[in-house]
Amino acid sequence: MGGPAMTGAASASFTADDYEARMERAARQAADAGLAGLLVAPGPDLVWLTGYTPTAVTERLTLLVLAPGRDPVLVVPTLEAPDAERALGASALTLRDWTDGKDPYAVTAALLDADGRFGISDNAWAMHLLGLQRTLPGTSYASLTEALPMLRAVKDAAELELLAAAGAAADAAFEEIRSVAFAGRRESDVAADLAGLLRRFGHTPFTSRSSPPDPTAPTRTTRSGDRVIERGDMVVLDFGGLRDGYGSDTSRTVHVGEPTDEERRVHDLVREAQEAGFRAVRPGAACQEVDRAARAVIEDAGYGEYFIHRTGHGIGVTTHEPPYMIEGEEQPLVPGMCFSVEPGVYLPGRFGVRIEDIVTVTGDGGRRLNNTAREMVIVD
Amino acid sequence: MGGPAMTGAASASFTADDYEARMERAARQAADAGLAGLLVAPGPDLVWLTGYTPTAVTERLTLLVLAPGRDPVLVVPTLEAPDAERALGASALTLRDWTDGKDPYAVTAALLDADGRFGISDNAWAMHLLGLQRTLPGTSYASLTEALPMLRAVKDAAELELLAAAGAAADAAFEEIRSVAFAGRRESDVAADLAGLLRRFGHTPFTSRSSPPDPTAPTRTTRSGDRVIERGDMVVLDFGGLRDGYGSDTSRTVHVGEPTDEERRVHDLVREAQEAGFRAVRPGAACQEVDRAARAVIEDAGYGEYFIHRTGHGIGVTTHEPPYMIEGEEQPLVPGMCFSVEPGVYLPGRFGVRIEDIVTVTGDGGRRLNNTAREMVIVD
Repeated sequence: MGGPAMTGAASASFTADDYEARMERAARQAADAGLAGLLVAPGPDLVWLTGYTPTAVTERLTLLVLAPGRDPVLVVPTLEAPDAERALGASALTLRDWTDGKDPYAVTAALLDADGRFGISDNAWAMHLLGLQRTLPGTSYASLTEALPMLRAVKDAAELELLAAAGAAADAAFEEIRSVAFAGRRESDVAADLAGLLRRFGHTPFTSRSSPPDPTAPTRTTRSGDRVIERGDMVVLDFGGLRDGYGSDTSRTVHVGEPTDEERRVHDLVREAQEAGFRAVRPGAACQEVDRAARAVIEDAGYGEYFIHRTGHGIGVTTHEPPYMIEGEEQPLVPGMCFSVEPGVYLPGRFGVRIEDIVTVTGDGGRRLNNTAREMVIVD
Repeated sequence: MGGPAMTGAASASFTADDYEARMERAARQAADAGLAGLLVAPGPDLVWLTGYTPTAVTERLTLLVLAPGRDPVLVVPTLEAPDAERALGASALTLRDWTDGKDPYAVTAALLDADGRFGISDNAWAMHLLGLQRTLPGTSYASLTEALPMLRAVKDAAELELLAAAGAAADAAFEEIRSVAFAGRRESDVAADLAGLLRRFGHTPFTSRSSPPDPTAPTRTTRSGDRVIERGDMVVLDFGGLRDGYGSDTSRTVHVGEPTDEERRVHDLVREAQEAGFRAVRPGAACQEVDRAARAVIEDAGYGEYFIHRTGHGIGVTTHEPPYMIEGEEQPLVPGMCFSVEPGVYLPGRFGVRIEDIVTVTGDGGRRLNNTAREMVIVD
């Protein structure tokens, strides 16, 4: 699940040539989609395209302008230009800096077709979009995810290697957390242990764990629960983060002491649903088929109303991005896509179960990047 | 300077009544400005108005709708509704949750005048603004800072107390960092010491330090410099962060061993400029007068081209917000406003000096919230 859409610094695995190729590919895709260009704000799109992450995202405009057939230009505050020049992809683009007090929209507008349609980063600030709309009233805009949803979705071999390494590191953290004490300690203590393990294995971590009385809390990521874990609890461990610029995100549900028959049955059900979701992964299948496959197992068992979220989300330079495994998403799966498969059942006030792996699409199916036991793990 | 516009969780100092009063005031100001309402995204505006900070900002829409004469409504993903219900200001608003897969813009549009003009948070995602523009093509928008630049600018007594406490804590950290070893250690080591001190004094810290060869690096906040500090260096320490929901941000420039005459002269010049900026603070003066007063001192001494940023920025629930002390900002100062006064001179490849205090406007002048020595401090 993974909560915060973390984005970090660029991986050192890539060169200026890699970034140049990505920018060219993005500009080509923009042209194919009928766009006059892409406007890319600080965040995952920018770090993926240029290797640049500003130290701070402030009200000062930083924006990459990619227009088909023209050289990429990064509009950047003068104060931040030295930082931008050090980005791994900087040699493949031109910096256009603007000084404090000047109008950055005029600087940007000079680079744009006055009546073009542009894709703009989802997370670009509304203030900047309004500035561009005001300066160039003939332009129109679509969010980048809407215009080019699959821009970053298909990973190349180097990216897959980084994602697999991040997954393996998260798995290693899980193998060690199994043997710490759960009963009698606060959720936040276990979470701190898990975060420490993730750091040891190279992550900037997130962790979330939830146990009763709030098993519906798949969103309580990165919050420390003060609740003391008791013998008899089911605990959903949802953890991962970024490692060398690429994400991991996995969930396992552990039981403190012996489970009841019902707990065992629901855990088996979620495991079966997760397996069904995984088996639905193959090139050409629609994203929604993965959701349907996992959901059908849970619905057929009568627990459909307790599976309250989509089955999965993409992962890459962020821990949460397209493609989404959700009803209505007809995007076909393509080899190299990476996403979570993470069905869950949450019985309010009682217990919850989630099992989550990152899966990548291969030539003829899927390959899991998380490989710890999916059977229920008993902890102390 | 303070780099990242940090925003944190709400201070426990405020009650539901405080948040209700802020929301009422904001709706009234919106009406006075001719707006049909305010659309407030997660971030500083939302935490200030409601006490709510989502654990994660994802592509899922969370938006507070404040319309004059109507009750405040928080549009929130169903998954996050339990978190939102726990916000300090939750009892003063109605939650309108939307389920994964549904159209959140339709949910929001039902709350808006179809041809109204709305203020929207600067940092709302462009994707969400585009969604609203598409769903209600008759609406128009202005960024919240443009529409109501002073919404959060005038602090009440409780806020001033929190800002003063944050400033005092940052000062306490500076008193201790003076005695650590600088020479022979990396910038990042000193920064880690300073961050540790800030944490000890209750902060979620940011730190930045810059020494030659990159003294123009006022933006290199939160980056760890690998450079080893040498005897003879000037080091700009820019640090602060959030403490109990409110910010601190101060800079002092220290010298490792004895300074040269020129270094001493430039430091004295910046100190004089900082004093001149501070003395320009009084109710009714325009923000730009603070900038002009500080800048005139530096320009008159022939160093104008080396003062490459505005003189100051506001501070509150973020470490960087309006009002800005910059040429062209005619907003008059009002008692209760809080902002930095931080002139600097940066000689490329040689050394840089910045001196920064947070200042609040009083009934007849200004009061500094940072009070460590502004004379050059010699460190080892």
